[in-house]
Amino acid sequence: MPHNVDAVLAFADAELERSLARLFELIRIPSISTDPAYAEDCGRAAAWLTTELLGLGFDASVRPTEGRPMVVGHAPQADGPHVLFYGHYDVQPVDPLDLWQTPPFEPVLLDTPQGKRIVARGSSDDKGQLMTFVEACRAWKAVTGSLPVRVSVLFEGEEEAGSKSLGPFLDAARDELKADIALVCDTDMWDPKTPAITTMLRGLVGEEIEVTCANADLHSGMFGNAARNPLQVIGDIIHSLRTPEGAVALAGFYDGVAEVPPAVKASWEALGFDEAAFLGDVGLKIAAGEKGRSVLEQIWARPTCEINGVIGGYTGEGFKTVIPAKASAKISFRLVAGQNPEKIRDAFRAHVQARIPADCSIEFKSHGASPAISTPADGAFARAALGALTAEWGKKAVVMGSGGSIPVVGAFRRQLDMDALLIGFAQTDDRIHSPNEKYDLSSFQHGIRSWIRILGAFAGT
Amino acid sequence: MPHNVDAVLAFADAELERSLARLFELIRIPSISTDPAYAEDCGRAAAWLTTELLGLGFDASVRPTEGRPMVVGHAPQADGPHVLFYGHYDVQPVDPLDLWQTPPFEPVLLDTPQGKRIVARGSSDDKGQLMTFVEACRAWKAVTGSLPVRVSVLFEGEEEAGSKSLGPFLDAARDELKADIALVCDTDMWDPKTPAITTMLRGLVGEEIEVTCANADLHSGMFGNAARNPLQVIGDIIHSLRTPEGAVALAGFYDGVAEVPPAVKASWEALGFDEAAFLGDVGLKIAAGEKGRSVLEQIWARPTCEINGVIGGYTGEGFKTVIPAKASAKISFRLVAGQNPEKIRDAFRAHVQARIPADCSIEFKSHGASPAISTPADGAFARAALGALTAEWGKKAVVMGSGGSIPVVGAFRRQLDMDALLIGFAQTDDRIHSPNEKYDLSSFQHGIRSWIRILGAFAGT
Repeated sequence: MPHNVDAVLAFADAELERSLARLFELIRIPSISTDPAYAEDCGRAAAWLTTELLGLGFDASVRPTEGRPMVVGHAPQADGPHVLFYGHYDVQPVDPLDLWQTPPFEPVLLDTPQGKRIVARGSSDDKGQLMTFVEACRAWKAVTGSLPVRVSVLFEGEEEAGSKSLGPFLDAARDELKADIALVCDTDMWDPKTPAITTMLRGLVGEEIEVTCANADLHSGMFGNAARNPLQVIGDIIHSLRTPEGAVALAGFYDGVAEVPPAVKASWEALGFDEAAFLGDVGLKIAAGEKGRSVLEQIWARPTCEINGVIGGYTGEGFKTVIPAKASAKISFRLVAGQNPEKIRDAFRAHVQARIPADCSIEFKSHGASPAISTPADGAFARAALGALTAEWGKKAVVMGSGGSIPVVGAFRRQLDMDALLIGFAQTDDRIHSPNEKYDLSSFQHGIRSWIRILGAFAGT
Repeated sequence: MPHNVDAVLAFADAELERSLARLFELIRIPSISTDPAYAEDCGRAAAWLTTELLGLGFDASVRPTEGRPMVVGHAPQADGPHVLFYGHYDVQPVDPLDLWQTPPFEPVLLDTPQGKRIVARGSSDDKGQLMTFVEACRAWKAVTGSLPVRVSVLFEGEEEAGSKSLGPFLDAARDELKADIALVCDTDMWDPKTPAITTMLRGLVGEEIEVTCANADLHSGMFGNAARNPLQVIGDIIHSLRTPEGAVALAGFYDGVAEVPPAVKASWEALGFDEAAFLGDVGLKIAAGEKGRSVLEQIWARPTCEINGVIGGYTGEGFKTVIPAKASAKISFRLVAGQNPEKIRDAFRAHVQARIPADCSIEFKSHGASPAISTPADGAFARAALGALTAEWGKKAVVMGSGGSIPVVGAFRRQLDMDALLIGFAQTDDRIHSPNEKYDLSSFQHGIRSWIRILGAFAGT
């Protein structure tokens, strides 16, 4: 390896406090993408990142879209392989706000029995993760004056909102974004000490339904029994989505879903996954979902249906004997390989429509439909990355699945004919999408160091 | 009849504009009893009514309770029978606020194709109704210098919040409140032209449940399938509350419920109730609830179960793939004669508890439990009132049932050994408990005139 990796690593360690300060600056911008009230903040986050990239010598700019802007940057030199790093600067909403122990957009570094932790919305997903890469680039630039490979970056601002602008943008910017490999930093480690590359991602169909019965809220004393109650209709629909055995009850839902091969199952068993600890960590004891399948199989390899939100009627303090006119629900499906997202969406809508009384109405709203995806883990980039991760963490890096969905990986494959390596330093207990989201300081520091090593290793490929 | 009723009626007509102005003043006080944020406004409404009564020569005062205060007043003279008029100055919450066409506490008089209407929260339930009685007293006092019978009044401030202070207050104030008959003005007319006395009221059991599964909101990509979802649990519970035939599925729910006697059913059929119009007015066509029973039977004589509110998970703009830690529902039961509210509450709680997974928890909160009640319609007071109503409206007054619950009627019976006459001038389309609540100007004006005639008629009993 031609580069002095140790000196770069030493620089990153010495820079850690300032790296953290920069991350905190980015976190303080409340760039929630699902709520239009924060559109301006998303713009501020994009501008902030562009300024950082310009400071590192990138040719960088904010690129407007129909929704939240993209940030694209290209490092100047052209030697070695070309990698495209992807991350997203947008974050999830913060409610329920009253469950946060510290203000969500005022990051703090907490000293806990499990080590130091950065607590804030976006600390892990995805600001903390994407800044590990930016800081790795800074260290290379500072010590050697340049980056060891050709680097482009793409930061998206709608990942938590269905990535509506991503497809058109990739088509339009195909030539400048197409690289030898994409690096996506939005995944977990196996555990706090074991790094991992993720190679299986589930797809996602997100649907919102609004059921309307009467043309106004009604008094239950006057209309009870006789007037259809949309909360009853939604309760019936929710109940109908699962069979008594815990399977998803949509027609054709499991069409194309392959059983996990026995050899793969055996290799998962060898991982020593502790079901009781996994559930116990979140206060549960009994696995829900499909009977007769392990928790690991269910979260990695089986499609699912979850009710993500329901609202209707009077939900304030006290009581109101109302029959609401409307009620709504947000429902999502995680898909595995072989499932067609459009077919699942159609099956869901037909299933719901069949349960709407003839004098009531239903409105559907799509929040995305993306297929599951697998990425190769046996190429030169993957081998180099696994070696670099193993060297940094002192523990053999593993190849694993993930229950989450990262639609950009499929888009890179389809639109840019480009594979992706999914490498992230988040932990399963980071509470992403929940109150008190955190990112271990260890994830941040060793994440930066991991990328330094990975970029160095790529230079030798 | 010794009194010059016509002169009193003429005075009321001449006074109408000022009567309306006084009602508007009362409506502008947002006396919502279920929300502690409006406790001070409830106090202001009580004080306002006390001032009105003092102005009419009543011995009146605000009486503190553990909750919202009562207002009690006694007119000075002691001739003739003694009546206790009951009304409530508290109102329902106003959400969803965005469905109001005018601000809920800024009353307006709208000129509609159906006549002039007072639109505001409380215009009908119960400020408009109770002010018909106050204005009738004012007219008698102005024209004759006194009231034709001995009148006491009781205004409550917790009717919409479970009337928690009412029982202890009636016990403590028994001697001053016990009268020959109670007059309760919280009911409907048969239709806009036909006055009515209501003699059957359903009881009410209100329950709030909160289901807790995990100890934090979870990411559905990480925990989907495997972690129990409280919205799924609540959906399953809601579904389980009704049989496929639309009956309420609690064990023993119909114990003690008598079938409506054929003769009564026949008399109801003679009323010419138009099911299609009743449902069509609120945008519906198909009766829900128990199959094989008419809408009128269902709303007057059958117990029911309604889902009044559900909330859980992410319910804002956009989408969030969360598995919520908690979800909650407000559920109520209207009871008929023969049902025991405590037994129904116990059956509901056992039914729900049996559907909570062993590693999840449930909290129950009671929002009241009151039995159904019947009042006699064949005594001297009822006959006098029916005659007065018929004279005022020019149409024979009817005796009818009601799906609503007015627990004070049972409390008067049990605690004060006093019957009640339920006479009100609301219409079924008044949207009480809903946005754009209204009270017909005709209800207000002829309501005042009706009470003038009724008090006059009582003087002859």
